Amino acid sequence: MEKDKNVLEIPYGTRDFLPSEAASKRAIETKLAELFAEWGYDEVVTPTIEYLDNLTLGSSRSSEAHLFKLFDKDNRTLALRHEMTTPIARLVSSRLQEYPLPMKLSYISSVFRYEQTQMGRQCEFHQAGVELMGSTSPFADAEIIALAIQGLLRAGLTDFQICLGQVEFISGIMEQYHLAADVKEKLKLAMEQRDLVALGNTVDALDLPATAKSVLKKLPVLSGGEDMIKKAYDLALNEQSRRALDNLCEIYRLLKAYGVEQYVRFDLGIIRDFSYYTGMVFEAYTPGLGFPLCGGGRYDHLLADFGNACPATGFASGIERILLALERQGIERPMRARDIYLAYAAGKEAAAIAKAETLRREGKTVELSLASQTQSEAETAQLAKGYRELVYLA
Amino acid sequence: MEKDKNVLEIPYGTRDFLPSEAASKRAIETKLAELFAEWGYDEVVTPTIEYLDNLTLGSSRSSEAHLFKLFDKDNRTLALRHEMTTPIARLVSSRLQEYPLPMKLSYISSVFRYEQTQMGRQCEFHQAGVELMGSTSPFADAEIIALAIQGLLRAGLTDFQICLGQVEFISGIMEQYHLAADVKEKLKLAMEQRDLVALGNTVDALDLPATAKSVLKKLPVLSGGEDMIKKAYDLALNEQSRRALDNLCEIYRLLKAYGVEQYVRFDLGIIRDFSYYTGMVFEAYTPGLGFPLCGGGRYDHLLADFGNACPATGFASGIERILLALERQGIERPMRARDIYLAYAAGKEAAAIAKAETLRREGKTVELSLASQTQSEAETAQLAKGYRELVYLA
Repeated sequence: MEKDKNVLEIPYGTRDFLPSEAASKRAIETKLAELFAEWGYDEVVTPTIEYLDNLTLGSSRSSEAHLFKLFDKDNRTLALRHEMTTPIARLVSSRLQEYPLPMKLSYISSVFRYEQTQMGRQCEFHQAGVELMGSTSPFADAEIIALAIQGLLRAGLTDFQICLGQVEFISGIMEQYHLAADVKEKLKLAMEQRDLVALGNTVDALDLPATAKSVLKKLPVLSGGEDMIKKAYDLALNEQSRRALDNLCEIYRLLKAYGVEQYVRFDLGIIRDFSYYTGMVFEAYTPGLGFPLCGGGRYDHLLADFGNACPATGFASGIERILLALERQGIERPMRARDIYLAYAAGKEAAAIAKAETLRREGKTVELSLASQTQSEAETAQLAKGYRELVYLA
Repeated sequence: MEKDKNVLEIPYGTRDFLPSEAASKRAIETKLAELFAEWGYDEVVTPTIEYLDNLTLGSSRSSEAHLFKLFDKDNRTLALRHEMTTPIARLVSSRLQEYPLPMKLSYISSVFRYEQTQMGRQCEFHQAGVELMGSTSPFADAEIIALAIQGLLRAGLTDFQICLGQVEFISGIMEQYHLAADVKEKLKLAMEQRDLVALGNTVDALDLPATAKSVLKKLPVLSGGEDMIKKAYDLALNEQSRRALDNLCEIYRLLKAYGVEQYVRFDLGIIRDFSYYTGMVFEAYTPGLGFPLCGGGRYDHLLADFGNACPATGFASGIERILLALERQGIERPMRARDIYLAYAAGKEAAAIAKAETLRREGKTVELSLASQTQSEAETAQLAKGYRELVYLA
């Protein structure tokens, strides 16, 4: 057979995890699974493939362009899941209908999106997250944010910031100036992309008083601590925005009880990339990474699309992004232990097998040589393979 | 929006794992990941999607019908991986070329095949397995089989049988009667499907002496212990088959050193469903399950297809099948611990948050109520949610 370089290629936007990377991924996923369990969250697993119509139920139709589509034998359109919130909303609305509320669920899954790739942004990536169904309380939102913070800490990160917003604040402001639907969409897109120029141009073209234009232009830069929130009340001439600020103040009060307020700042310009959010939204940022480590928020209407009206809140963390942040910040990533390389002289095979079993039962990781070696060959192999210790049976 | 029952459907051959199922899946995958690490195997992760041409490189073209295909933006054909051996062969032949041999790798992954589904056979399923590259030694094959056995034991199964064969034994017998290629394929297919009638009909139609026909018809029923192997030497009038039997005897001798020979019987009729096998092959069976729990074998030519001539051996276990076997055999499956449901009277929110943190730091799993409750409401919730203990802050 003619050797073809192409056989070594993998599709655009996908990646292999080499042993050291995969060991860190496994370790962090295991830590997060343990954390979620400690907080009373039950893991669920959903199919990698769903019907396209289900996946797009809660999202804007524009997201369809980012989906990997395929067809089943009956020519129905399927797609690889692009996030986990919608599949879990489907699951909760079908086979978990009888579970007592509130329901606390978690997942660790791969998801797929066609994107222009860059470091930390791939077409296939891995998410660990939770969904909390059945409570409208700020207590639920605070638990979600506190758990997201604990997850980043458990993964080994310390230098990060949660940016906390509330989509109803922005909606209220837009309502208060009676903006048309297409104008709202334009402004939201500009805010999502943090494109202040586009936002400014859109606002300038509106037939509004100067004070109103000034308020709209301020939206993306309303970030800070409790003082900023106090000032934001002055911009909110409508009940919806004021209730949104009250909600954020209550969540913040509870985050203080969790002792995690130092990780949290308000950012009223946060617009998440899924249209299903209805309340608080947040993203976590860390130095040296130009995109969020994790993000989430409240989505009280998505489950109704599955016939199961039920409020909900949750978040997802990006495993690859956490790994990249650890690497860029020079934080040691968890590795597989390499305790003992076990080698043996000719005729000692059976003794070596028995010794390996004994050492493993003592909790050691043991790589057993597959052929007899001289002591010097064994030392070379031990070093090449990076084992701490050589056990040699002469 | 009109509620549509279809939005609750999932594609044919896929499944959701509810909390109790997902907890068992997580626990067993974690145990297997730990076991593979203890034996010195490095985990790797490859993309869910690969180029179709890569996935079919080592397999017969007929397997293509079982692949989930899709297209990238350049209209190249992609497919969801249907097994992990080929992707790992690709990885070893590209980015792991410099790793010291022998190389011991492991994976825990979802794989996809269009199949007629039944219990334990789905279109998406999960496999845990290992690949050992760079050794032709029976010692490598014995390690693989011993590790497969330890994996089943670690998962909680005790009643299972490894059926061990050697594809070169059958190839040698077919050569010794100078069978045509199409006849060989027919016989192998009949043996793979354990279809003794089809096998008999094919053999009867051949222009061969009665003794030869008798030998060919015996192939699927050559199973048993060391005595059977001794008798099989009498059927093997060719060097290839005799070497295959020598190889099995040597592997069996090493399995005795591992102390696992009670789990192993020979079955010279084993034909695995991938055409890349070149030496020993095995499958594990357990009562009440009509298909193997795991299977594997030696494949010394697959890596050459990726330009990297290197012998290899390995196995894959089916996670769903292990879970099904545990359930059918009434063996308790690992579950998430549910230690404490923590509830509180009105005004005690902050104290409850602090208490939850303390209990979790002590290693307890704690579900925190999201609203104040009376003691009696709290007891009801504790029972409904299945927590062992209620902590109530009055």
